[in-house]
Amino acid sequence: MPLILHSYWRATAPYRVRIGLNLKGLPYEYAPVNLLKAEQNDEAYADLNRQELLPALDTGDGHVLTQSLAILEWMDEVHPEPPLLPKDRYDRATVRAMAAIVACDIHPLNNLRIQKQLSALGVDDAGRTLWTQRWINDGFRALEPMVARHGRGFAFGDTPTLADCLLIPQVYSAERYAVDLAPYPAIRAVADTCAGHPAFADAHPDKQPDAQPS
Amino acid sequence: MPLILHSYWRATAPYRVRIGLNLKGLPYEYAPVNLLKAEQNDEAYADLNRQELLPALDTGDGHVLTQSLAILEWMDEVHPEPPLLPKDRYDRATVRAMAAIVACDIHPLNNLRIQKQLSALGVDDAGRTLWTQRWINDGFRALEPMVARHGRGFAFGDTPTLADCLLIPQVYSAERYAVDLAPYPAIRAVADTCAGHPAFADAHPDKQPDAQPS
Repeated sequence: MPLILHSYWRATAPYRVRIGLNLKGLPYEYAPVNLLKAEQNDEAYADLNRQELLPALDTGDGHVLTQSLAILEWMDEVHPEPPLLPKDRYDRATVRAMAAIVACDIHPLNNLRIQKQLSALGVDDAGRTLWTQRWINDGFRALEPMVARHGRGFAFGDTPTLADCLLIPQVYSAERYAVDLAPYPAIRAVADTCAGHPAFADAHPDKQPDAQPS
Repeated sequence: MPLILHSYWRATAPYRVRIGLNLKGLPYEYAPVNLLKAEQNDEAYADLNRQELLPALDTGDGHVLTQSLAILEWMDEVHPEPPLLPKDRYDRATVRAMAAIVACDIHPLNNLRIQKQLSALGVDDAGRTLWTQRWINDGFRALEPMVARHGRGFAFGDTPTLADCLLIPQVYSAERYAVDLAPYPAIRAVADTCAGHPAFADAHPDKQPDAQPS
């Protein structure tokens, strides 16, 4: 049974998992869940993932995994080559910290359910954009010196890691929200490297079967 | 050189790491950083952690680790006994997903910097409490069936895991924000078990050297 990834083209959490699957060379079926039509709240999907959030990965042998960080760690344990984490334990902690900055301290503050809740509180479009930019900038300010120090082409070292799986979708989101990336030359350099890497290029939102023309 | 944990008694992210250190039986020095006095923005601390967030763990041999999830994973790799993750890879993914629900989808939406930003947007005390309760309830609704299914005393199985390190501080926060825990009997049962476990009891905010009387 093949892997099945429940995904939405533009959502950044499934985008992370697509990159991981591509880096590992794992083929998968793409099961679109349209967030704009709230299909994540449909019973069929909610039965798979009680959080009614994307992604979910059906492993094809009776398990459905949720939470992109947990899925990527699973993938790296089950399919260790090429590794998503360095060998040295301090280096692993650094890569995981970089990933967590995106996964915990940037993305959750900006996703669709938060945008809706801010709207309900009377925050207008411009206010929501400022909110989103604020958390991206806060996180990128912390990531930039880490990438500058540890990156050699990729966010950590000269091969893709978990940190790139998280960072590249966040850069995509930053561009959507018109964040000025000029203060982050190290992050931009990694984004440029990854844009030319097939695992990242094929995972890009615009390449997904459910992509909508802009 | 001893481990040094930069912590604030009431913050939930360092509370997670205190539980982990206690479970592993690792002694550490407690370095208080008063968030209410914004000491996390002082140059001395910002030099350790560019995110100016807690916790940071000085490993005593020239490394400073940040991000509680990354610190706990490091701890489990360097000091494997007792393990914070089960052996089976699907079980590990489940425990990590439970941890990520707290670390990514509950806590970051409610911490002090978000409360401040909501205030600046004109959201009053009552509105901020509703906001906080909303995300805790969303996360606990997803966690409750996972704990009910997998827990046997602790959140996953009959020994403490990474999931408990994350869940117990979140329950503490839920109580502070007067979240009604009646709909979550499985989570409450785990909280009761952990309250009687020394590693958790000693990590409780009220037991920390910088604790303030309520």
